[in-house]
Amino acid sequence: MDKRLWTLREYPFHPEKLRYHETIFTVGNGYLGTRASFEEGYEGDTPATLVHGLYNHAPHTQVPELVNAPNWTEVQIKVDGTPFRLITRSSDLLNPPQGLILGYERALHLDEALLRRVVLFRAASGATVRIIFERFASLHDPHILAQRIHVTAIDGAPEIELEAVLDGQVSNNGVQHWATMAPSAQAEQFSLFGVTNQSGYKLTMASALLGPGTPVGQTQERRASSVVRIQLGRDDHAIFDKLTAVYTSRDCADPTVSAATKLAEARATGYDSLLAAHRQAWKHCWQAMDITIEGDDFAQLAVRFTTYHLLIAAPQHDEQVSIGAKTLSGLGYKGHVFWDTELFMLPPFTLTLPSIARNMLMYRYHRLEGARQKARENGYEGAMFPWESTDTGLETTPKWSDVLDKQGQPLRIWTGDNEQHISTDIAYAVLQYWRWTGDDAFMTQYGAEIVLDTAVFWGSRAQFIDGRYELHDQIGPDEYHENVKNSVFVNRMVVWHLQQALQLLTWLEQHAPQDAARLVQNLDLNAERLARWRDIIANMIIPFDEARQIHVQFDGFFDFEYIPVQHYEPRVGGLWGYLGHERALRSQVIKQADVVMLMALLGEELAPRQVLLNNWETYYPRCDHGSSLSPAMHAWVAARLGLRDEAYHMLRHALAIDLEDNKGNVADGIHGAACGGAWQAIVFGLCGLHLTSDGPALSPQLPPHWKRVGFKVVYQGQVYPFVAEA
Amino acid sequence: MDKRLWTLREYPFHPEKLRYHETIFTVGNGYLGTRASFEEGYEGDTPATLVHGLYNHAPHTQVPELVNAPNWTEVQIKVDGTPFRLITRSSDLLNPPQGLILGYERALHLDEALLRRVVLFRAASGATVRIIFERFASLHDPHILAQRIHVTAIDGAPEIELEAVLDGQVSNNGVQHWATMAPSAQAEQFSLFGVTNQSGYKLTMASALLGPGTPVGQTQERRASSVVRIQLGRDDHAIFDKLTAVYTSRDCADPTVSAATKLAEARATGYDSLLAAHRQAWKHCWQAMDITIEGDDFAQLAVRFTTYHLLIAAPQHDEQVSIGAKTLSGLGYKGHVFWDTELFMLPPFTLTLPSIARNMLMYRYHRLEGARQKARENGYEGAMFPWESTDTGLETTPKWSDVLDKQGQPLRIWTGDNEQHISTDIAYAVLQYWRWTGDDAFMTQYGAEIVLDTAVFWGSRAQFIDGRYELHDQIGPDEYHENVKNSVFVNRMVVWHLQQALQLLTWLEQHAPQDAARLVQNLDLNAERLARWRDIIANMIIPFDEARQIHVQFDGFFDFEYIPVQHYEPRVGGLWGYLGHERALRSQVIKQADVVMLMALLGEELAPRQVLLNNWETYYPRCDHGSSLSPAMHAWVAARLGLRDEAYHMLRHALAIDLEDNKGNVADGIHGAACGGAWQAIVFGLCGLHLTSDGPALSPQLPPHWKRVGFKVVYQGQVYPFVAEA
Repeated sequence: MDKRLWTLREYPFHPEKLRYHETIFTVGNGYLGTRASFEEGYEGDTPATLVHGLYNHAPHTQVPELVNAPNWTEVQIKVDGTPFRLITRSSDLLNPPQGLILGYERALHLDEALLRRVVLFRAASGATVRIIFERFASLHDPHILAQRIHVTAIDGAPEIELEAVLDGQVSNNGVQHWATMAPSAQAEQFSLFGVTNQSGYKLTMASALLGPGTPVGQTQERRASSVVRIQLGRDDHAIFDKLTAVYTSRDCADPTVSAATKLAEARATGYDSLLAAHRQAWKHCWQAMDITIEGDDFAQLAVRFTTYHLLIAAPQHDEQVSIGAKTLSGLGYKGHVFWDTELFMLPPFTLTLPSIARNMLMYRYHRLEGARQKARENGYEGAMFPWESTDTGLETTPKWSDVLDKQGQPLRIWTGDNEQHISTDIAYAVLQYWRWTGDDAFMTQYGAEIVLDTAVFWGSRAQFIDGRYELHDQIGPDEYHENVKNSVFVNRMVVWHLQQALQLLTWLEQHAPQDAARLVQNLDLNAERLARWRDIIANMIIPFDEARQIHVQFDGFFDFEYIPVQHYEPRVGGLWGYLGHERALRSQVIKQADVVMLMALLGEELAPRQVLLNNWETYYPRCDHGSSLSPAMHAWVAARLGLRDEAYHMLRHALAIDLEDNKGNVADGIHGAACGGAWQAIVFGLCGLHLTSDGPALSPQLPPHWKRVGFKVVYQGQVYPFVAEA
Repeated sequence: MDKRLWTLREYPFHPEKLRYHETIFTVGNGYLGTRASFEEGYEGDTPATLVHGLYNHAPHTQVPELVNAPNWTEVQIKVDGTPFRLITRSSDLLNPPQGLILGYERALHLDEALLRRVVLFRAASGATVRIIFERFASLHDPHILAQRIHVTAIDGAPEIELEAVLDGQVSNNGVQHWATMAPSAQAEQFSLFGVTNQSGYKLTMASALLGPGTPVGQTQERRASSVVRIQLGRDDHAIFDKLTAVYTSRDCADPTVSAATKLAEARATGYDSLLAAHRQAWKHCWQAMDITIEGDDFAQLAVRFTTYHLLIAAPQHDEQVSIGAKTLSGLGYKGHVFWDTELFMLPPFTLTLPSIARNMLMYRYHRLEGARQKARENGYEGAMFPWESTDTGLETTPKWSDVLDKQGQPLRIWTGDNEQHISTDIAYAVLQYWRWTGDDAFMTQYGAEIVLDTAVFWGSRAQFIDGRYELHDQIGPDEYHENVKNSVFVNRMVVWHLQQALQLLTWLEQHAPQDAARLVQNLDLNAERLARWRDIIANMIIPFDEARQIHVQFDGFFDFEYIPVQHYEPRVGGLWGYLGHERALRSQVIKQADVVMLMALLGEELAPRQVLLNNWETYYPRCDHGSSLSPAMHAWVAARLGLRDEAYHMLRHALAIDLEDNKGNVADGIHGAACGGAWQAIVFGLCGLHLTSDGPALSPQLPPHWKRVGFKVVYQGQVYPFVAEA
């Protein structure tokens, strides 16, 4: 194995990239994610541990959010009394009054999901130690978190004081979600028990410090710890293991009991065996999901990095949660679940680890009641999924932005009202899952209800005007344009959705008549309703310019100001900030793949190849990729149109979004959709994976410098290893 | 051509890496080098243009240095009156009071040695422009420097004011070398004429601003410029070319006349044709010197980067100059020429572009008188080359360091006195050149005199003690240990040197008896002298530990404190600063390949393979690579010993020294020796290039992930294309 292509490295310490690295080096196991803040802390750091499903709506806030859990990583070390800190400069190298870092390296080992930091620290006494920190969140047992601290005396014979801490003095950017946070410390363990102040979730973290010396428990306000002191001779070393167990009331009846039991089990197992089991679990994941790329080291490392971030956020054992837009790696978008999940992050799992995809689809199934409530409240029928979703299944998009308009008033956020294509996106993911897995049991029991009840919503939502159907006040993928009339993306996908719904119903009647009957009855799929679906399919307006032979993004799009987006290269981020909200709204600048996204999803089912090319030539130069969702979809479509240079250019952009921070906001968390989008762009786009009557097949359009791409997909229970060659 | 592997890119702007990029993106043509400071300036920037051979010993300074020449790159632009500056933040994106950068990208195109920057700038008026800056120093005609400034109005219809400047308000970190710096400005050109205050060198730079509008000349104190104002409509663009001609009194009788003539010629030719000729010249260089590496994109790009930096500093047309330790890319080491040149930078030229190697050897030949003077002054015979050399050929190593010892006194620098192996290093380079090129004319007329007269020096320098020869008070490559007794590197290389000298003399007597007679007479190579050489060869002490079967770096080395260097990983820079001078001096920490360097130069001529392996195991763990010269030599030797992992580890370190700034001092200039060392480590080390009786041949030891390495060498006038495969 070529470790170069499995390792992300920070060397030396880059204080100016502190928050970037906190996000990039996040560890997680699909149960929780923990940002890579330093054990000892650093000025301006933003430690966060986010546990799937642990939402809370704090007082005086607009919407619920994923709660920042206690920091289980904290470790304080003193060397001959000098607190270990990342101090990189001193006027006196030989006797630094507050200690000094002589060396630093941090690496995230993607293959085994292990974060490792090595530091050389010279204390005020002159004693110098080498400290190695390791941490992982066990993928084998998601309730176990493990750290190892390895201290070697390089010079001198220092006294080492080590305090292993659980820190419950945490908030979400100042918002306090914990009503109580009770510390306790005994000989065997130290722990925190917290209860959220609105949702009432309970959480317990229990830790033990193992190694030389006799640890002494300590508690303070919202803080529990264990302290040990030892003496090291020159060239001596000591290994401390800190093991933590975590449970919430979402997992069990009494998190405190469960955590104590799990901690005892982890102690008995020991760090080395825990790590071995964790490595084995990762081996399984990588065997399923790794894409190998020969001829492009950047792309190879980057696609492993993006796949890693999908995997550490993916719920392996829980069908009540799904992946938020920023995964579990940062507070951005408050842990809310968007369409990013179903159309960007979920398909890679559908094709490689379908049980994970199923969990994420079940998350939506279990929230159908919330979607029905939203439909009712808006005067519609069926199920209308929220644009932003949490645990309740209700709409949790904030109504007001922090950004002010020209009059100094907060901007109104319309996506929660009008970005309604989310319901069709979910249906798309359900149908894609079914098609690839052949999981009829899922489809008949759960999936069909999602597809059909969201179809019911659209049947009630479509507006019949002058003998045609229209959709007004929609927001398509391009969010620069709000509340538009007849978004071609939305209208065309609704038609596709209703077509699929009718076909699905026919299939159910043939293959699962009892389920068909149940659904017809429960969802009231009467003849009139189905007739209206057929009428909408036949008469929906699909905006199209016959003269130019292109789809029109929405009614009136081309009346807006044309701005040559390519002149604004190179940028960081979108044009919105530079143009201002009002001007962007009335311009032809597109935030992200919209018509192009439609082309990715429907391909030549949408239109003949020449129209697709015309669309590309129209919309590609108008898109500023202000959304991280955009480049991967462009890469996919460009490759399918045989535009290999553009495909590579866009794929590289997608792969670099987090690694090179080319949107400038990685500190807020990983762009999960870009990660999933990149996987799809390579597999569906550049490699051209598609289904034939004989099963999956490729038709590659690789960048000229790529030699070979390898990956596996599962089709109807069978593994297909593929190699695409240039 | 895969442009990815030929391009270094900065995106977006990284103010914290300002000086790093100034060095990295240096342009040059073997006549001068110019750091990549911005045309408009930036707080904390360090613009510098260094012209080969233009040394000056300013009053109140210890030693002469390469003079910072006027800044020919300055261009000031105003957009609707707002000065263009790299301002990256504003509270008001739409109406930034002092302008705002909306986008930024800079790329150095290694294939064509062209630096290109694209910026988007919004003026206070709201007008937004896209500005593209290009610059190159013509390799086709080294007296021509060219810039193009391409301005496009993206938004609004701004007035553009552009001032093309020659800025003579320059110094070397505050040291003023210019006695006079006279500006002038006419319709056709603006210019500066300067005279250095000690050496009396004259320099003229003359520029012309071409493009729309009517330029007006301006002069200020030590500053000449040309200003033009134009109005741009929206989507309009304008192209301004600034051409500069430069001459010194080293090149011609009257630099002012020559510059004016050259500028007129450049105007007539025009930017596009100048660029085309420049590209063609670079194509020739790359065809000769490029190493292609398949299977490692980092190594591929990095070796092109290091080769580029060798090429832009290499004197193509001048045998009176050579390449300083920091090339022409920064003020570090004051432009002085060390052994870095002969043993690190020169061999790649010897094997690919031998006329350049010849120029650099001729630089030494022309300075034999200085070397003889140094020998005389120190009580020796023959030629004793200075450790640090400038134009005079005299010793220019400073005697005192800026670093203070424990008593607060400046540290004495001993290298100018005692790092005497430089004379043998130069002889080594001469003999290597002769062996590879078969250039007997050079050897008989010039090279032999260097080899023989430095041999004369050693004959007088060796100390006869108790029937053996010794060398006391030497500094070997490992500069942590000063004034040691019997450095094995020095003693063994002196033996080798004297052996070569005797063989050379025999060859001369057979093949060029007249030259032999001339040299015997002029250098007084009498029988007694030659007998002493033979006696030294037979009886020189070569420190060796028979029990351990290893060479001993110098007498008493193993009596010093052992410090486990590997425990101090990862570091930035050497251990010297952390240990302190006094402790380092009495430790076994080695600054750089010393015995290992001897193994690189002599291979199995030094000792049987098992002894070489023993040496490696002894010295590799003791070396802290505090010198940038070290890793490449280790890579070379490790590969020859079949240690492919260590070889790759060390090569990567060498390749990253400048690109990843892993010594932390790239701001001072490129590490030229690391560049040349990397080339040699790949060619001689990993690919195992060696000479057989049938000519050159390979015996590769490639890193496991490398697929293929390709390069060409010239052996005795014939081109040998090589491909090494894994």
